[in-house]
Amino acid sequence: MAPTPWISFTTDYGLADGFVAACHGVLARLTPTTRVIDVTHLVPPGDVRRGAAVLAQAVPYLPAAVHLAVVDPGVGTARRAIALAAGDGLLVGPDNGLLLDAAAALGGVRAAVELTNRDWLGADVSATFHGRDIFAPVAARLALGAPLADAGPAVEPSTLVRLPVPLVRPEADGFTAEVLTVDHFGNVQLAASGSLLEPLPRSLRVERQPAVRVHTFGDVAPGELLVHVDSTGQVAVAVNGGRAADLLGVTPGDRLRVTAG
Amino acid sequence: MAPTPWISFTTDYGLADGFVAACHGVLARLTPTTRVIDVTHLVPPGDVRRGAAVLAQAVPYLPAAVHLAVVDPGVGTARRAIALAAGDGLLVGPDNGLLLDAAAALGGVRAAVELTNRDWLGADVSATFHGRDIFAPVAARLALGAPLADAGPAVEPSTLVRLPVPLVRPEADGFTAEVLTVDHFGNVQLAASGSLLEPLPRSLRVERQPAVRVHTFGDVAPGELLVHVDSTGQVAVAVNGGRAADLLGVTPGDRLRVTAG
Amino acid sequence: MAPTPWISFTTDYGLADGFVAACHGVLARLTPTTRVIDVTHLVPPGDVRRGAAVLAQAVPYLPAAVHLAVVDPGVGTARRAIALAAGDGLLVGPDNGLLLDAAAALGGVRAAVELTNRDWLGADVSATFHGRDIFAPVAARLALGAPLADAGPAVEPSTLVRLPVPLVRPEADGFTAEVLTVDHFGNVQLAASGSLLEPLPRSLRVERQPAVRVHTFGDVAPGELLVHVDSTGQVAVAVNGGRAADLLGVTPGDRLRVTAG
Repeated sequence: MAPTPWISFTTDYGLADGFVAACHGVLARLTPTTRVIDVTHLVPPGDVRRGAAVLAQAVPYLPAAVHLAVVDPGVGTARRAIALAAGDGLLVGPDNGLLLDAAAALGGVRAAVELTNRDWLGADVSATFHGRDIFAPVAARLALGAPLADAGPAVEPSTLVRLPVPLVRPEADGFTAEVLTVDHFGNVQLAASGSLLEPLPRSLRVERQPAVRVHTFGDVAPGELLVHVDSTGQVAVAVNGGRAADLLGVTPGDRLRVTAG
Repeated sequence: MAPTPWISFTTDYGLADGFVAACHGVLARLTPTTRVIDVTHLVPPGDVRRGAAVLAQAVPYLPAAVHLAVVDPGVGTARRAIALAAGDGLLVGPDNGLLLDAAAALGGVRAAVELTNRDWLGADVSATFHGRDIFAPVAARLALGAPLADAGPAVEPSTLVRLPVPLVRPEADGFTAEVLTVDHFGNVQLAASGSLLEPLPRSLRVERQPAVRVHTFGDVAPGELLVHVDSTGQVAVAVNGGRAADLLGVTPGDRLRVTAG
Repeated sequence: MAPTPWISFTTDYGLADGFVAACHGVLARLTPTTRVIDVTHLVPPGDVRRGAAVLAQAVPYLPAAVHLAVVDPGVGTARRAIALAAGDGLLVGPDNGLLLDAAAALGGVRAAVELTNRDWLGADVSATFHGRDIFAPVAARLALGAPLADAGPAVEPSTLVRLPVPLVRPEADGFTAEVLTVDHFGNVQLAASGSLLEPLPRSLRVERQPAVRVHTFGDVAPGELLVHVDSTGQVAVAVNGGRAADLLGVTPGDRLRVTAG
């Protein structure tokens, strides 16, 4: 296959240790002309759901790339290491649901393999740092144009580990939906697609709090609660100049009811 | 115009979400050979003054570049989106004062335009993520060498939104100045230019605390307060091995009085 | 010498100010084709020991590079600025022990010089930001292929400032070792080499807490304490799905006793 000039990189490794740099080093040694776009390394430790969401929301805007993602609380256990082909991208990481939302965003899984080809790896594979020792070397080989099928045997996509689907429940006067993410600004993104807002009026309630359905933060007074379709197409709850997650006291996985108010 | 090989990138987007990566992706797709220097993405949310200061203090050391900066609490409202030419650089961001200190550091605004050319943008422009949907695409086009005038109509520079000028007041025995920034080390940078220190003696007071005017941190004993001209040419107050901002209990916008002591 | 296409970059500058970007800018201006791998900029302020550890653990995985590292509480005082040749790498930074563990990891110091050649520096050298004004310009020149000997006079390696060697004490039923690092996940890395675990049984105690010697986190139940050889070859104490440093109440420099349990 043609080489891919980009690798994206998503982990829960944090930025204070040398973990991210060790992986960058492995990539630089194996494929020095490939450039790396760091998506984030601040996924909360072991939070596969959060890693899946951030990657899925970034990939539509990234160039064609090998997407290397490692949020891997089961590192070194029997969980599979996998690579997927989806749309114009390849995804490399653990088989724990991390990659599948991004694969769907890219157009769906076209092929999947289990990473068992030891010839692609270094002599020493640690038990606890597969990002450096397995996933980065495989991402580098794929970026260099090696065929996906050479990474290991095909995996039936239906056997891939999936995360539970977050709750979205349409109701007579609105909907209840799980909180998918809380961003840096405290904005609360729901699992509900933006289309669920369409039948609702401008005046809403989020749980018992009054809120206004608008297009952007500055459409309400500072400190007021608003509901809008966010930049990824999901329903989100925000406060102009404030933090909706703090006002509502919610974190990802909690449920919010949005109704005509 | 000749292409610019560098883009600098400054935001308040944080590092935990996919916002920065989405913008990097937009840039990579449109201008894959341009390289990006991230200035910081940890401007406190919506803190335009802080964003302006960090960008202005970085640009003198950056290569000729398109400087993309987004700290934009008014995103999606009537505030203008602008691009400026200043010195050997171009600046792209919201018209809220964020860009003007950097423009001054580069030699002053030579030209300004409002970003109204929809042909430069994608089909969908969100109401809340203009970094991804307006500013990054425009920065990419400018980096590719498109003329500034093609981005939109000229804006009279005197109409650009300006931040209030921070207070600096010379006094009989010293000066009072606003705290401009507090850095990672707790060093307190004042709005006062280093030349204001020249007439003062070695022995000083910062408010009521005794302090010594020296060249560097290690010139006083650990834990002692010092006043010096910092690496940007501003007066700064520091503690050797400690955090002056904590000792003095100040944050940006507060005022400090520095006097012969 | 042949140019080096990579520079690695390690500091305690944090990510919220423009310090890191100013250094990136200096490098980009002087050696625009060199690429920079950021190791970390979140070394705790002034923590030379921590900076030395993170750099030493990253360099074995980085490509041949000029390793620029600045954790420099003595900036502007009489401490020397140095560059070292070690293995296929060069190291540039302050003479305070920061570089020597990495030099050892690369194969040992082959040559050392003091950075006194003012022709390599800009016209203005600040008293407090030698990363930007001395170390980055020197790293850029070396990356461009300038001979190490041109940076300044040779330094006898035995005169380089060294950090105290962290305590490791083998005992009848195990060992006591200093905590070298605590990582983002709360894993506690000891100064003890993995070989010290070999004579010990599966059932251990870390201080008074029972622990199991295993290969990876998922080999014990969630919340349980484990001891393993980590991905750098050191003994480490961890909790499956938790933070060993919090459970044990330790920070770097503390000592832990690991014994047959």
